[in-house]
Amino acid sequence: MATTVDKYFELVDQHQKEFIETLREVVAIPSVSSDASRRGEVVRMGEWLQARWEALGATCKRVDPGKQDLHGVELDLPPVILGQYGNDANKKTVLVYGHYDVQPALLEDGWDTDPFTLVETVDGRLVGRGSTDDKGPVLGWLLCAETHKQAGLEFPVNLKFCFEGMEESGSEGLDDIIVAEADKWFKGTDVVCISDNYWLGTSKPCLTHGLRGVSYFHLQVEGPGADLHSGVFGGTVHEPMIDLVHLLSTLVDPNGRIKVPGIYDQVMAETEEEERSYEGLEFSHKALSGDLKRDVIIHSDERMTLKHRWRFPTLSIHGVEGAFYAPGDKTVIPARVRGKFSLRTVPNMEPARVAELVTNYLNAEFAKLGSKNVMKVIETHGGRWWYSSPNHPNFVAAARATERVYGVTPDLTREGGSIPVTLTFEENLRVNVLLLPMGAADDGAHSINEKIDKRNYIQGIKLLGAYLHEIAVTDLTA
Amino acid sequence: MATTVDKYFELVDQHQKEFIETLREVVAIPSVSSDASRRGEVVRMGEWLQARWEALGATCKRVDPGKQDLHGVELDLPPVILGQYGNDANKKTVLVYGHYDVQPALLEDGWDTDPFTLVETVDGRLVGRGSTDDKGPVLGWLLCAETHKQAGLEFPVNLKFCFEGMEESGSEGLDDIIVAEADKWFKGTDVVCISDNYWLGTSKPCLTHGLRGVSYFHLQVEGPGADLHSGVFGGTVHEPMIDLVHLLSTLVDPNGRIKVPGIYDQVMAETEEEERSYEGLEFSHKALSGDLKRDVIIHSDERMTLKHRWRFPTLSIHGVEGAFYAPGDKTVIPARVRGKFSLRTVPNMEPARVAELVTNYLNAEFAKLGSKNVMKVIETHGGRWWYSSPNHPNFVAAARATERVYGVTPDLTREGGSIPVTLTFEENLRVNVLLLPMGAADDGAHSINEKIDKRNYIQGIKLLGAYLHEIAVTDLTA
Repeated sequence: MATTVDKYFELVDQHQKEFIETLREVVAIPSVSSDASRRGEVVRMGEWLQARWEALGATCKRVDPGKQDLHGVELDLPPVILGQYGNDANKKTVLVYGHYDVQPALLEDGWDTDPFTLVETVDGRLVGRGSTDDKGPVLGWLLCAETHKQAGLEFPVNLKFCFEGMEESGSEGLDDIIVAEADKWFKGTDVVCISDNYWLGTSKPCLTHGLRGVSYFHLQVEGPGADLHSGVFGGTVHEPMIDLVHLLSTLVDPNGRIKVPGIYDQVMAETEEEERSYEGLEFSHKALSGDLKRDVIIHSDERMTLKHRWRFPTLSIHGVEGAFYAPGDKTVIPARVRGKFSLRTVPNMEPARVAELVTNYLNAEFAKLGSKNVMKVIETHGGRWWYSSPNHPNFVAAARATERVYGVTPDLTREGGSIPVTLTFEENLRVNVLLLPMGAADDGAHSINEKIDKRNYIQGIKLLGAYLHEIAVTDLTA
Repeated sequence: MATTVDKYFELVDQHQKEFIETLREVVAIPSVSSDASRRGEVVRMGEWLQARWEALGATCKRVDPGKQDLHGVELDLPPVILGQYGNDANKKTVLVYGHYDVQPALLEDGWDTDPFTLVETVDGRLVGRGSTDDKGPVLGWLLCAETHKQAGLEFPVNLKFCFEGMEESGSEGLDDIIVAEADKWFKGTDVVCISDNYWLGTSKPCLTHGLRGVSYFHLQVEGPGADLHSGVFGGTVHEPMIDLVHLLSTLVDPNGRIKVPGIYDQVMAETEEEERSYEGLEFSHKALSGDLKRDVIIHSDERMTLKHRWRFPTLSIHGVEGAFYAPGDKTVIPARVRGKFSLRTVPNMEPARVAELVTNYLNAEFAKLGSKNVMKVIETHGGRWWYSSPNHPNFVAAARATERVYGVTPDLTREGGSIPVTLTFEENLRVNVLLLPMGAADDGAHSINEKIDKRNYIQGIKLLGAYLHEIAVTDLTA
């Protein structure tokens, strides 16, 4: 095996320019899924991918998820491209996921260069919309397969793929397809690998084995039948907005500690092994407060910041619906307001239990106010966390591949946010899922001047190939 | 005098139908000042008034206050019509104010009939936009003068008038005109009378001698340089919105008690005379909670409700700018939020002192939070309260006139809101101002199916005339 991988690495280095040209070609397709006028470009990008894989000999199936109502315009959803490359009963089967749509981007948003023209800078950045999110990684799998084929190298696994064009717009239609195809197109999958997140820092690669869940709540307080004039009614009626700020202030203290009793009881205990995994992580408060433009970090210890991103529940208050929100002054007493807040949940919290604790607590706190208004807690969303052991052979294979390419042991990270498709694959295919990022923390995925470093792109193409070779020789039942 | 007034009352009764037809004529002019497409109608209404007064022999001056920027459209402001009717050195001079513009109204808002077609109902309501606010009262002065002239009755006073067409849109341009004309057109004014508010209830007339002031604040909390993702940053940074709800909750308790230390210290003490004035007022919680559609009244005692509308400061929370306000879910941590709240102020509170107390208190409360965010209190508006003694001869004359028309002693009321022009006249003309309402509490001035009861309209025309006759025989220096 060693020889094949070394040969593959050599070929990747030789084809760098060509690979960058391919990235340029796909960045030039403005596949913005949230922009109705660009829906044709999204479809074109999906067709580009399908054609290129089919030219290589892959079997593809285009699934059209149906219609979408985009701000009143009815549109065809872009296709999900399912593929199968190789079908050798003696090889393991790896399913990879990625998305070919991108975030919106306009030069006037503040980009230094046209967002859909890839620019290679002198300091080694490949700048363009989608370069890192997620066209670079999606190309990685394709270029890996093409390189093997052109050089006559044996491809180490059977590869299945699932590329969607709606990830930046809520992955509309995707879950149903995964459920429907779990025992059909995806049958036989041994492990899943998703390359659509980022390193913790900018120099050290990582494997990601956890995501937080999210439970979203609307806290509604309803008072009089209509908005009132504060001159006439201020101080004489129970104001929904006053009740609301009192209730919201009981949820969390200014240092982020959640005040809902019992909320920390279900949190997984910390092990010594986990504690050790924080050592040597590439993460600094100095870099973080630079990114934030102001040092508003709660914790003094960097490890505590990561723990509150990864392994502790947190509560954020997002806003208020129904109250006055425009610039200027308005002397209204809003009749009905909804505070919006959410909890990020972690192992082993149950969404149903979280909703129960939050609702009971708010009911009790509201009773204390002695208000004649009517209060209601509505859970609008309860998505589970995802947690995978970093000792699973899928992760061990990825760690070995990383060491081979970068010469270092990867950081083990979790993410504070959600990537819902991860859980959908795990729950429906019942196999291990690995998050294997290609880009770095400062890539600016949803921001202006999105980039992927040339190093990450080229080494990333090696990494994805090395990972497939490692999977081929790993006992996945271990 | 008795004979003249009795004759006048008789004539008003005889001309009821004609007076209702005149109201129908002006309601049919849709003088909506907030609607750019109807600006021509506003001007037409002002010109109608001017022409009618000039036909009667009044000297008028049309003042055009200049230009207005209405949602990006530049428009001429409607004219302020100044007038002088009679100029006899032996008579007193009364200045009356009113407005000839109206609130917007559309049948589809829920009106039972076309808002700009006056409908007389079997139960005695005259329904139409502007019927009570403020075309009925504005016509009252005109019809009073016309009736006197037609019958050859001596008009008891010199009348000056000031009718504007922008009251429902912030009285843009009016203050400057009052200041400029104080010692010119308005020179020689003995008292001012404004008929542009409402009875406390629906059956008993009142005189209004006080208005609350308003101090409006923006409480700004600024954190990171940009909005953040709550998955990544929740629980690790000081969230401006969390600080804000804590601060807002310290301002006022759910029962309306203001928690800012010192805020009640400047409140005028209650006298026995004032206490007595609450006796027999036409006001009930039952009617109020019916209007509110839900009983959300804080106080159990009706007198306390009125005191919190009239004579105590109150604090309302209006909303939040900068946070998520739309329907649905968004997992944002807003970077900069502004809570909007205002205090209604009463004698003898000084706006500057109120701002100082509020700012110092919030600074102290913010310091307790231990947040790294930046907090700032901005006072955007500080308008004074208005309070006039109900024993002033101007009020005594109005009380006598009311007794003569309605056979009852009028309630003495104050209002919880502001009518800024009241204070502008008092401060610039340095004479007593009286608020003498024509309509009832349930007229629905800014609502659908606005009406004035036929009784209030016809008796109101008598009342305005009787008031002028009383002024003629009252020693205003008493």
